[in-house]
Amino acid sequence: MNWLVDTYTEVGIATAYETTGILHEEQSVYQHIKVYSSTQFGHILTLDHIIQLTARDNFFYHEMLAHPAIYKHKNPQHIAIIGGGDCGVLHEVLKHNDIEKITQIELDARVTTVSAIYFPELCISNTDPRAELIFADGIVWMQQAQAQSLDIIIVDSTDPIGAAEELFGKAFYQQCYRVLKPGGIIVHQSESPLTHLTMIQQMQQKMREAGFTECQTLHFPAPCYPTGWWTCTLASKDHDLNYYRREAADRQDFTTQYYNANTHQACGLLPPYLSKGLTKKNTG
Amino acid sequence: MNWLVDTYTEVGIATAYETTGILHEEQSVYQHIKVYSSTQFGHILTLDHIIQLTARDNFFYHEMLAHPAIYKHKNPQHIAIIGGGDCGVLHEVLKHNDIEKITQIELDARVTTVSAIYFPELCISNTDPRAELIFADGIVWMQQAQAQSLDIIIVDSTDPIGAAEELFGKAFYQQCYRVLKPGGIIVHQSESPLTHLTMIQQMQQKMREAGFTECQTLHFPAPCYPTGWWTCTLASKDHDLNYYRREAADRQDFTTQYYNANTHQACGLLPPYLSKGLTKKNTG
Repeated sequence: MNWLVDTYTEVGIATAYETTGILHEEQSVYQHIKVYSSTQFGHILTLDHIIQLTARDNFFYHEMLAHPAIYKHKNPQHIAIIGGGDCGVLHEVLKHNDIEKITQIELDARVTTVSAIYFPELCISNTDPRAELIFADGIVWMQQAQAQSLDIIIVDSTDPIGAAEELFGKAFYQQCYRVLKPGGIIVHQSESPLTHLTMIQQMQQKMREAGFTECQTLHFPAPCYPTGWWTCTLASKDHDLNYYRREAADRQDFTTQYYNANTHQACGLLPPYLSKGLTKKNTG
Repeated sequence: MNWLVDTYTEVGIATAYETTGILHEEQSVYQHIKVYSSTQFGHILTLDHIIQLTARDNFFYHEMLAHPAIYKHKNPQHIAIIGGGDCGVLHEVLKHNDIEKITQIELDARVTTVSAIYFPELCISNTDPRAELIFADGIVWMQQAQAQSLDIIIVDSTDPIGAAEELFGKAFYQQCYRVLKPGGIIVHQSESPLTHLTMIQQMQQKMREAGFTECQTLHFPAPCYPTGWWTCTLASKDHDLNYYRREAADRQDFTTQYYNANTHQACGLLPPYLSKGLTKKNTG
């Protein structure tokens, strides 16, 4: 019996999956990429030996990075995804027929190439004419992007260490603020509230310092990440994040496994643990 | 570096905590009991080598087994807890000043004795005059209990294998139905919806066959259990489980970390994954 063990030493936890084989392994220019097959969770992708997704449970994370922000925006036309090389978030965003253009800026083309082979269900929409896949540094891309040209920015980054650290910084959020149109929203994955509450507080603080008027942290399950309890944090350029296109969410015309109008409401209703930690306005 | 590894072979997952020592180990009449100290999650209790709780994250489970059912009951006076030897649920129930009597029936007195030493924060209310701790077989106790003598039954059992299996059976639920007063509610921990959806469906089915008119499954995080996403399932003898004493929940006069009026609402709002799996009435 083989186990893929992912040890998060700094938080004293490890998670492991029983594997049946290694399907792919390479060292790209940027990172170590590996794909396992598992007994119960389908294919599993690791980057630098950290579990990024399993075929069975990625729907929580991918749906929650995409749909709440989209329904909270009044008229989303052009969306950018920073990172997101496995294309799971892209696949969710493309389910919205009213979105005209999605630009994804992933650093490592090999992640997308490998995902297309081992996670075809996440990449089936990559050929949608509305999707543009750019393989470049998201930080540089954002610096060079036209002011007020995007409605939503989704930051689907790895953990705030190493290459991704800069994506969690005030300077990057300032660029995002500049590039968002009025009414714009940024959403960034923000780790486990149980182990990273301080990081979430700092993220909200940096987003506010970058000019965003309001922040909101949403919580949801993410079994393959440490503690299994995860968050994303949204910030809006100028409008109330409690707003959402309720009617559109209620008549959602595509299939999801975790997101729906119920989830939209539930994920922003904070337990005391989170509302105490995030004292500024943050309601569902 | 030492790790306590808890392997759930049947679902292909393992979780692990970095430990700093073994504080206690014994073989009781019923099971193997062990307490570890850990780097990040405080003391950890295992029964037959399966993690039951960590000091840091037990609040999710204990609060969610206690408070939703209590607020959904119109006038809870007498509550029984089956299992619950670590006394975490008992501690939560005793926070409600309007409850007159709580009887806990735990099979293994050693679990409670050990918990009182290593998890004193869960056991500080054990001397409350409203609490009666009985060490006996919960199945037999329920068979012998007076008809229509309880308002709420909380089944805080281990997994549905071995000694606890009978607690997940129709015969036990029939006894619970008999012992509950009109307006009575049973709540039973019901595993991870990601890996045990069929079991939850079967639990609801058995509860209905036992006479309960309505079932409702609530979902919440439980980091130390496999997948980190957990449920409890409620069944009512005769009333709408969507009812709850909203005003009382809103002015909750005790401290919790996960449960509050927000959580009460959120935990019953089901994502598609769960609402599709649980087709019968189940709304927040």
